[in-house]
Amino acid sequence: MSDVVLCECFARDGLQNEPTFVPTESKVAAINAFVAAGFPRIEATSYSHPKHVPAFRDGSEVVSRISRREGVWLKATCPNMRAVERALADRTAGHGASEFSLLVSASESHTKRNLRTTRDEQWARIETMVEAASRDPDVRPVGVVSVAFGCPFEGRVDSGSVVEDVARFVNLGVRHVTIGDTTGLGTPTIVRELFGRVFRELPDAIPIAHFHDTRGAALANCLAAFDAGCRWFDSAMGGVGGHPAQITYGEGLTGNVATEDLVNLFNEEGVETGLDLDLVLAASKQCEAILGRELHSNIARSSWGLRGRKSRAHA
Amino acid sequence: MSDVVLCECFARDGLQNEPTFVPTESKVAAINAFVAAGFPRIEATSYSHPKHVPAFRDGSEVVSRISRREGVWLKATCPNMRAVERALADRTAGHGASEFSLLVSASESHTKRNLRTTRDEQWARIETMVEAASRDPDVRPVGVVSVAFGCPFEGRVDSGSVVEDVARFVNLGVRHVTIGDTTGLGTPTIVRELFGRVFRELPDAIPIAHFHDTRGAALANCLAAFDAGCRWFDSAMGGVGGHPAQITYGEGLTGNVATEDLVNLFNEEGVETGLDLDLVLAASKQCEAILGRELHSNIARSSWGLRGRKSRAHA
Repeated sequence: MSDVVLCECFARDGLQNEPTFVPTESKVAAINAFVAAGFPRIEATSYSHPKHVPAFRDGSEVVSRISRREGVWLKATCPNMRAVERALADRTAGHGASEFSLLVSASESHTKRNLRTTRDEQWARIETMVEAASRDPDVRPVGVVSVAFGCPFEGRVDSGSVVEDVARFVNLGVRHVTIGDTTGLGTPTIVRELFGRVFRELPDAIPIAHFHDTRGAALANCLAAFDAGCRWFDSAMGGVGGHPAQITYGEGLTGNVATEDLVNLFNEEGVETGLDLDLVLAASKQCEAILGRELHSNIARSSWGLRGRKSRAHA
Repeated sequence: MSDVVLCECFARDGLQNEPTFVPTESKVAAINAFVAAGFPRIEATSYSHPKHVPAFRDGSEVVSRISRREGVWLKATCPNMRAVERALADRTAGHGASEFSLLVSASESHTKRNLRTTRDEQWARIETMVEAASRDPDVRPVGVVSVAFGCPFEGRVDSGSVVEDVARFVNLGVRHVTIGDTTGLGTPTIVRELFGRVFRELPDAIPIAHFHDTRGAALANCLAAFDAGCRWFDSAMGGVGGHPAQITYGEGLTGNVATEDLVNLFNEEGVETGLDLDLVLAASKQCEAILGRELHSNIARSSWGLRGRKSRAHA
């Protein structure tokens, strides 16, 4: 039993920024390590056009080779209708992802730069994509609202508009909605406010916290979201990741909140993650080996806290 | 005006762990940059025996060469009576530190390894040291209780015993007491509890939060302490520091909470730090230049958040 539902994003959000192609074999091995450690949700790949995002040109092969385990959701990013069709075709072939991630940006400028369209147009596309995905009743579409806590171009984002975006997903039947702090501009007060509003105004929504650690506040933001009632969290081993374009956004270093550090913090706070701590650390080491360098998790350099050590001693 | 009192610890806690001696000139230049940025408290050096801690063999010279500014407190670590005497002598010579930092450990094992004595003996020494320091009415003695949120040898530390230690300092007339999370074992719930108890039970105490980021939770812990009423915080540029012995404690990477990231978080949360953001970043760059490598602040790699950018644009 666990109190929170963690999604390991290393293999997609984590790798999207890597300058060197990560071999299919390594991606599959990493994801299998995440399955073994007990993650209930795993971001496996993206069905982006291989010409635009060559890092995931092996998406179909990756999802076909992962060791399946009952109750584990495999997520794939589907940036457009063509991606949804490819994701559905892989399912028909018997080895697809079970969650399709569908993306909008909270600001007009970020929509233009990241999705090369307008928010209106993107919402029209989302409707068609949700409709297509719903042809397969076993697919869980997951909404994403990016730059929800601030846009690198426009600054502060109106929380009312983010709540409206979440509502639009819910009205399309998409209850799970990732609220993304794409460039780490959120801080606990605004995080608590926004998640609080979502829970009050949209009782059918299941918001998912997705924080980047651009300014070091990601763990504090996760706790703030937890305090507001959020139980679903995204993170990436070693705190890797972030959109490559963020470098040009002038945001510099970014990256997801590090899974190892989030797991430790929850564990020390008495929040049950349902994960095997030894296998989490093993997966962490594997991710560093795959990328051939030390990544950004503090726990990977130190050790579990007091409860973590105790539970290992008793294991 | 500011809502919080920040102490910049780069030049002492930050440098104690450096394998290479940092030239006196560089230390003085860094501290002058901290003064210019507006830090009201600056940890300048340690009067440890030069044979045991050669990093601070130039302590007297450092404090004698710093540009003084009205209202800025310069802190020096005084691990024993001989150190207090040297610190007082420097003051008599006209260029001493104004805060003497006096250390106890919350656990018996850490006292033995770090201070090579027992807690009883250390408290007896502290009484003599406070008495000596009080000969100079312009000296502010500052107590430190280390490993207050957990001991690498003994595990969880009883918060009642930490409160007693703070009370002992207060009874000796030492109102300012640093509560140190020496190896980053604290998490927000225990932090809120401990600071809450200190404020409830010891209304005369002025507790100072001193968090290490060993497990990535230092910023979350600072906010938890702030929520409990704490307004005094220690941090170090670039998140450097930590006791060298911590490597042997099996804690691995440790380091103070990064000043840049703490300043950003407070600023974005609307907590006035009283610092000049541009000069904080300039000092941060200077610290990286002094150590010749990228340090651990996320802000140093990215940029201020939305309020920080705005205030710079309006400056």
